[in-house]
Amino acid sequence: MLSAVIPVRLPQAQYDIVIEPDSLAQIGEPLRERGLKGKALIVSHPVIFKHYGAILSQSLQQAGFTVDVCLVPAGERYKTLKSVQKIYDAALAAGLERQSTILALGGGVIGDMAGFAAATWLRGIPFVQVPTTLLAMVDAAIGGKTGVNHPQGKNLIGAFHQPRLVWIDPTVLQTLPGREFRSALAEVVKYGVIQDPDLFQYLEQLPRLEHYGDWQGADLFHVLVRCAECKAWVVQQDEREAGLRAILNYGHTLAHALESLTNYRHYLHGEAVAVGMVGAGALAVALGWWTAAEQQRQVNLLARCGLPTKIPAEMDLPAVIRLLHHDKKVQNGHVRFILPKAIGQVAITDEVTDALALQVWSQWQGDPEPAPALH
Amino acid sequence: MLSAVIPVRLPQAQYDIVIEPDSLAQIGEPLRERGLKGKALIVSHPVIFKHYGAILSQSLQQAGFTVDVCLVPAGERYKTLKSVQKIYDAALAAGLERQSTILALGGGVIGDMAGFAAATWLRGIPFVQVPTTLLAMVDAAIGGKTGVNHPQGKNLIGAFHQPRLVWIDPTVLQTLPGREFRSALAEVVKYGVIQDPDLFQYLEQLPRLEHYGDWQGADLFHVLVRCAECKAWVVQQDEREAGLRAILNYGHTLAHALESLTNYRHYLHGEAVAVGMVGAGALAVALGWWTAAEQQRQVNLLARCGLPTKIPAEMDLPAVIRLLHHDKKVQNGHVRFILPKAIGQVAITDEVTDALALQVWSQWQGDPEPAPALH
Repeated sequence: MLSAVIPVRLPQAQYDIVIEPDSLAQIGEPLRERGLKGKALIVSHPVIFKHYGAILSQSLQQAGFTVDVCLVPAGERYKTLKSVQKIYDAALAAGLERQSTILALGGGVIGDMAGFAAATWLRGIPFVQVPTTLLAMVDAAIGGKTGVNHPQGKNLIGAFHQPRLVWIDPTVLQTLPGREFRSALAEVVKYGVIQDPDLFQYLEQLPRLEHYGDWQGADLFHVLVRCAECKAWVVQQDEREAGLRAILNYGHTLAHALESLTNYRHYLHGEAVAVGMVGAGALAVALGWWTAAEQQRQVNLLARCGLPTKIPAEMDLPAVIRLLHHDKKVQNGHVRFILPKAIGQVAITDEVTDALALQVWSQWQGDPEPAPALH
Repeated sequence: MLSAVIPVRLPQAQYDIVIEPDSLAQIGEPLRERGLKGKALIVSHPVIFKHYGAILSQSLQQAGFTVDVCLVPAGERYKTLKSVQKIYDAALAAGLERQSTILALGGGVIGDMAGFAAATWLRGIPFVQVPTTLLAMVDAAIGGKTGVNHPQGKNLIGAFHQPRLVWIDPTVLQTLPGREFRSALAEVVKYGVIQDPDLFQYLEQLPRLEHYGDWQGADLFHVLVRCAECKAWVVQQDEREAGLRAILNYGHTLAHALESLTNYRHYLHGEAVAVGMVGAGALAVALGWWTAAEQQRQVNLLARCGLPTKIPAEMDLPAVIRLLHHDKKVQNGHVRFILPKAIGQVAITDEVTDALALQVWSQWQGDPEPAPALH
């Protein structure tokens, strides 16, 4: 049986990431063993709850929890304080107490919002992540970042609030839309570039990557474990993003700007990250940090994942750069970039001038990608 | 010269409470000495900013800060997510970065909202408390509790976020409305009851308490220092209110219900706390925890402060008790109370039944207090 427990050990919080196929119906007891009990509020969205809500609720009830449900719309454009207010209202209606638990059943948006609600309801109550998207499994569900978007920027409002448990059942990915699966592969490739060259090569030698159905269960399990270990390691080094943790934002600086300028409607997050990684790689080539050949390996692997690798031709690059200066990664007026030095190693720099970014990125603009299919 | 520095030492945060008359114009340098620099956003409300905004801004600018201002309405009924959103908008407009500082210039409501905005902007940025009310000086500004009200309950939404500095200049109390000064004396008396019998006796022997002008500067300074020491000690024992810190809520269980049922329009917070302390003292007498004579000393001291000591006759007590069950201090379905065992000592109990509370409190209902004057 495939099963892994990856511990996350932080000064103020210790918890496990459990990865095990076909395990959703078994979540109740492990929660009890971790001291959770009483009332539980499942935060999810209608589609995912229809698939997995009954299994989760039943497992919780069998373990003695009183279960309430709050369904909110998914999608980056609903990641707002208004949606969080709905969760607050549900928390009040459910009578959540300080020892009650909020569970996020869904992707990164659900996890971020439910986590922020848990971080701020009664100044913080227990929280459990049950990610149902590949993106959330490898990234968002691990590490305690929670929050919502401001109309003028992503994730400007938020809190650090570590979960008590992260429960990953890869089998739920069978119902994930294909485009979302591909999108998340960008973050998987990212771990390869920022710190795990073995993972990068492992992905390169897999025959087909694009669809969930192309993957052997054991390969997917292996990749999930590697990603969770990468993320857990980085978070343990630097919980509050004082320094090292920023490497997880590889590709994200440009990605956030692209998402914002397209009103979070054109890209899935990982798709924007794929473009952002290519953009960062191109800057690294221009600075002489890594070779054109390494950049090409990155581009090829992303393309094999079915991901975009060009900045849309119609994108207004000066507007992109202006927006970067509003981003939270600005320090002392300079835009910080995370750029690769090798496959498996990145570094943080504020040496990139606006002029250089403009020049390099204009060479990576291309025809708009064909409208991506959802499946 | 009167000046005191009271250190607060928590595992994740160390900061000072500075108490010094006529010191507001000197705040800039101490902030720099504590590593703060760059952009500063002052959150205040129009009346207090008119009095002290220029002094504060100037001191910050002289120390090299870039200063922006966000004015929000004061008053418990404006302590909402909507007001916090205004602060977020101002933070965005001011271009606050992770090393920027939010300063709260005002009372507890301003401090709670500005603190919550600081706790959740970019997942937490530095925060400084400059309390301008007696209530905020002795209570709200110390200890890191931040948050806003939910339409159905006080402080349900919030976060723990410790300030980098608490700067108390008692001279600013000269412009505080008299009713607010009296109201805050309830929290001062509270410290006497919960842990400082010397403070209680010190207050008893002062000739006049009701007005700011009745106080000698040295007496007020002494009392502010004692209160800050009490609060700092409790917070150091129990930052996250796992246990001991709950004693600070002496009088607050009933007070929150009274405030909520009167839509935060009838009582100032301390006035409700005064009634709540009397209500708690009465329960303690009924349980045999302390004597009727001790309760009378508490009632007399509160009355000498010009504070209400009776539950309004028209108050619907069963509604009060129902509301207590919605309060965050409910644990396992029992309402927790903090009750006095002596002047200087309280304990937490869940032994108070709804029936007992109903019976005891109905005996402490009285004619509505005359509408209090603002000055």
